[in-house]
Amino acid sequence: MDRNMPEILIYHNEAQQYASHIQELGYKGILRIARTPEEAARHIEGAEVILGWNVPDSLLAAPEGQSVRWIQSTGAGIDNLANSPRVPAPVTLTRIVDQYGRVMAEYVLGYMLFHNKEMKRLLEAQQSRRWDGFRVDTLEGKIIGVAGLGSIGAEIVAKARAFHMQVYGLSRGTDKAPLVDRHFTSGEWTDFVKQLDYLVVALPLTQDTRYTVNQEVLAAMKPGACLINVGRGGLIDEKALIGQLQQRPELTAVLDVFDREPLDRDNPLWELPNVIITPHLSGPSRVPDVSRYFMANLDLYIQGLPLRGVVDRIRGY
Amino acid sequence: MDRNMPEILIYHNEAQQYASHIQELGYKGILRIARTPEEAARHIEGAEVILGWNVPDSLLAAPEGQSVRWIQSTGAGIDNLANSPRVPAPVTLTRIVDQYGRVMAEYVLGYMLFHNKEMKRLLEAQQSRRWDGFRVDTLEGKIIGVAGLGSIGAEIVAKARAFHMQVYGLSRGTDKAPLVDRHFTSGEWTDFVKQLDYLVVALPLTQDTRYTVNQEVLAAMKPGACLINVGRGGLIDEKALIGQLQQRPELTAVLDVFDREPLDRDNPLWELPNVIITPHLSGPSRVPDVSRYFMANLDLYIQGLPLRGVVDRIRGY
Repeated sequence: MDRNMPEILIYHNEAQQYASHIQELGYKGILRIARTPEEAARHIEGAEVILGWNVPDSLLAAPEGQSVRWIQSTGAGIDNLANSPRVPAPVTLTRIVDQYGRVMAEYVLGYMLFHNKEMKRLLEAQQSRRWDGFRVDTLEGKIIGVAGLGSIGAEIVAKARAFHMQVYGLSRGTDKAPLVDRHFTSGEWTDFVKQLDYLVVALPLTQDTRYTVNQEVLAAMKPGACLINVGRGGLIDEKALIGQLQQRPELTAVLDVFDREPLDRDNPLWELPNVIITPHLSGPSRVPDVSRYFMANLDLYIQGLPLRGVVDRIRGY
Repeated sequence: MDRNMPEILIYHNEAQQYASHIQELGYKGILRIARTPEEAARHIEGAEVILGWNVPDSLLAAPEGQSVRWIQSTGAGIDNLANSPRVPAPVTLTRIVDQYGRVMAEYVLGYMLFHNKEMKRLLEAQQSRRWDGFRVDTLEGKIIGVAGLGSIGAEIVAKARAFHMQVYGLSRGTDKAPLVDRHFTSGEWTDFVKQLDYLVVALPLTQDTRYTVNQEVLAAMKPGACLINVGRGGLIDEKALIGQLQQRPELTAVLDVFDREPLDRDNPLWELPNVIITPHLSGPSRVPDVSRYFMANLDLYIQGLPLRGVVDRIRGY
């Protein structure tokens, strides 16, 4: 047992795989694993570090959780903790940065092409053995607007350029403006969306961005436009979205994230003909990659150096 | 009537649109339009130029067709005439070059992502309101092999590179080898395909390439591979393909072109679960673009200069 190694709780439905990888990568301290909030509550006492996904904030508020100093999310987001007053201020929160962009950009381009090439219509024609010849559209020249120009947004921009699209972007400040052909800030949402063929939401969820895609923004979307959400469900006012999609059948929404996950079985989104639902898989955490990222951060942590991907609790990401 | 303008027959189901565009672009000679072989036979006499798609070779063999000197295809291929002994040798055949690559590469990337992201499985899960969480794959690092490295193949290569794929290629000579990471020639088909995750067929159809993707080539494809044909139906031995797809359900075929088009209603391809059928639309001819291309060629023709996209009747494309 290495006394320099802080005790770790792994909270994840793939906790065992994470444990194996981390031990292979050289961790020799005390390791506990949990898959449910109840298991976590039983094992939290004494843990200094948590590696996990959707770690419940109640864990940090309980007396047994007072030993926790650092929580590493296995994903790009950690909004449930970053936005929670129950997480004591001295606890460091880190998320995975610069790892999901490329694969999430594949998802976005994949579903833009699915929409642009009318693949659903083609599948239906095939099912009835119908040779439904028509002139397919092209992405070339279409306008994509990327809301959120962090490492994920930047990769979506790069792939959209490979398809000769016009690329607009929206972000809080103006420092990312050089990435895009036209840049908008948080106060200019309706101006931004009214010109877009594709609106891609890749923002972090914070107090400022919650329900930022509201009724007014949705109503400003241009006829035939397609909304793709790979950020967080809470970025969009789901009720307003459902209303718009019902009223405007020419709009399309591709949704990978939802306010409540898994999406409730009775949610009307499932059956709207102009909605594609995917179960939060656009940016898959790969256990080996995340384990390496975590171990590099653990090394910094032990040396008392600044960690990678630290969340600014004021900014919220 | 401008006496310098050769008489033109337009043979196309969008003949009227072509006629309007060409006249707008300055053509002032005699113009006839036909949508069926019968109409074409009635109107061919006296025509010096044909602009059209799938112009029947019987038209050129008939005495009324002897005035024809040049046939411009509205598509990238003109194999039905290029390979036909009924077309007199002095008739110049031209096809559209350098116009379809980008849009066809969109189709190819779109269906590679459809396959890679298991979009069909996701659509089915949505239909039964099932939150079917799984770890999606990535195109990154996968091997694509492009058979045919002309202007269309080159655009497919460019877009595959934007997705960080490994790119192999096959072509007749070795002059296009620098485009790809590994190059194969026509004699090396089985070595080529056995390593590929995605085999994209973008060859011209000639006497040499007919049925080049045969039983042996198909059997050499690696488990789980996906074949995408955007070239010509005649490049693949359809019977052998159907047999392979039935025996190996883990293979996928995405087919935009067929030996007989429209595809016969009783063709078993329609209902194989591992086949995607689209009705020859991956490289749509856009009337305005093709009209401009044709008028530029007509200008060269009137001046007696070499045309763009001339088919080498010996080579076959």
